[in-house]
Amino acid sequence: MTRTIVASATREIIIGFDQPFCVIGERINPTGRKKLAAEMIEGNFDTVIKDALEQVAAGATMLDVNAGVTAVDPNETEPPLLVKTLEIVQGLVDVPLSIDSSVTAAIEAGLRVAKGRPLVNSVTGEEEKLEAILPLCKKYDVPVVAISNDETGISMDPDVRFAVAKKIVERAADYGIKPHDIVVDPLVMPIGALGSAGQQVFALLRRLREELKVNTTCGLSNISFGLPHRHGINAGFIPMVIGAGMTSAIMNPCRPQEMEAVRAANVLNGTDPNCTNWIMTYRDHKPAEGGHAVAAAAAPAGAGGRRGGRAARAGVARAE
Amino acid sequence: MTRTIVASATREIIIGFDQPFCVIGERINPTGRKKLAAEMIEGNFDTVIKDALEQVAAGATMLDVNAGVTAVDPNETEPPLLVKTLEIVQGLVDVPLSIDSSVTAAIEAGLRVAKGRPLVNSVTGEEEKLEAILPLCKKYDVPVVAISNDETGISMDPDVRFAVAKKIVERAADYGIKPHDIVVDPLVMPIGALGSAGQQVFALLRRLREELKVNTTCGLSNISFGLPHRHGINAGFIPMVIGAGMTSAIMNPCRPQEMEAVRAANVLNGTDPNCTNWIMTYRDHKPAEGGHAVAAAAAPAGAGGRRGGRAARAGVARAE
Repeated sequence: MTRTIVASATREIIIGFDQPFCVIGERINPTGRKKLAAEMIEGNFDTVIKDALEQVAAGATMLDVNAGVTAVDPNETEPPLLVKTLEIVQGLVDVPLSIDSSVTAAIEAGLRVAKGRPLVNSVTGEEEKLEAILPLCKKYDVPVVAISNDETGISMDPDVRFAVAKKIVERAADYGIKPHDIVVDPLVMPIGALGSAGQQVFALLRRLREELKVNTTCGLSNISFGLPHRHGINAGFIPMVIGAGMTSAIMNPCRPQEMEAVRAANVLNGTDPNCTNWIMTYRDHKPAEGGHAVAAAAAPAGAGGRRGGRAARAGVARAE
Repeated sequence: MTRTIVASATREIIIGFDQPFCVIGERINPTGRKKLAAEMIEGNFDTVIKDALEQVAAGATMLDVNAGVTAVDPNETEPPLLVKTLEIVQGLVDVPLSIDSSVTAAIEAGLRVAKGRPLVNSVTGEEEKLEAILPLCKKYDVPVVAISNDETGISMDPDVRFAVAKKIVERAADYGIKPHDIVVDPLVMPIGALGSAGQQVFALLRRLREELKVNTTCGLSNISFGLPHRHGINAGFIPMVIGAGMTSAIMNPCRPQEMEAVRAANVLNGTDPNCTNWIMTYRDHKPAEGGHAVAAAAAPAGAGGRRGGRAARAGVARAE
């Protein structure tokens, strides 16, 4: 059974096929957040602190930490900023962290200060990346996210993306890194631009699980790029990727619709034993308070769980 | 490609692997609805009419019609009541119908008056049922729902349930009925009672699709029996069963959360070409109006579609 172990100073988390879906909070990332970038450059970590606390309160299993403020010389500025951000976050919350940078020096600086067993985000199939990141992962004995693109970019052919992932796993093995310490990102394309994006990912996830036996992740919200009501698409995508074998995602845990989908999929996938987490979360749920006042108002009392006729004939427990 | 064709007098619908998920409205069913049963016995069809119109307006692809008011002698009373109900419904809406009864005489009476190509709901693996229903399906050239239980009841072993489904398909072939006219119901157990209920169904659906090449359906809301906030479980289950290959479900289309899950899964499964149905349905969606006011209020503008850092590195389109 594939188990990727990550840890903070005090808390160990397993990413695995038989584990609850691992939600990696995406919000501590200045990319595309000008205000956050400006704050971080000034040494103001108020938003970082707020995002860390809110994401953990919302149910994040891990937090991704990125300090890429796109300064003039990231090799100079990003390492100390990432170190500072990691130290603040790990002083504040007890979930394991993902060290997210495209700057190798920043990743190494982060690894020096991170407590426990962080995840490195990320390595690609590019030679330069493989040679820079894999030795670090070996040296610090940490797992790594492997993004299935290489020098040629992202292939639109899922077989090529699988081959890149396989190459990374093999190269990691050359460094003594086991497949259970590689978390492959099959790369999710926007479904509005590529209608087969979902089917590609589902097929890739099954192959990654069955053939490479690796854990998987993705930048989840990419799927809904450009569409209206993105949360609805994301919330539908989560159970589908979990059903196809995905074991973690880099996503926004502060979205109740998406987190509800994660919790439901855990129940349905058998990784919320006795539905305990679901029942604890929703035991006081009132339909009218939740997201679906229209449905609740329109439905007569006790209308849930119809199919009584068939259920009665077939012997299934009736809903009412 | 497996195609189950159903039709009303004026409208043909295909149930198939490459088709939008077929939502069979469950509400015209007096089982467990005492008030509706009392109305139907009195010859009052006001609720039937309301349910027919509302379900079609909500997006039902087909309507299931059941008149099992559990009178003293269903063989006497159910056939004329089912005929009357079918005639009212097919005079009112143009979607294909599913003739739902455990009384063979009622099914035959229904088949005589139904226009187009209705679905018969249902046959089981019980010898008596097979011998009663399959000849009717052949005679009227209509597809049938095959429920995977037999004289021994519902097996908790999914392999046995698969074997029962296979037996029904083979017996249907003896009558000259093709697999594409059998829609198998693998039987969904409540996940609160049986933690492996989801995984059982997902595995069964894949086998039914790959080995028997049949379309599938289920009484969807059974999965959430006994749990709080059932809509959340149902809405998570829909994308998972669609991902596993299910092509229709008998469900309540008047629940926005469940129908949103169906529409999202159609997008992600590639059966909503160019996302047209999604965009038309949600183009004016305002997060604050929808089901997730808390999420919308808590999130800063433009927070959707993070992962910019990685997306930028990897070349995926950025969300903002």
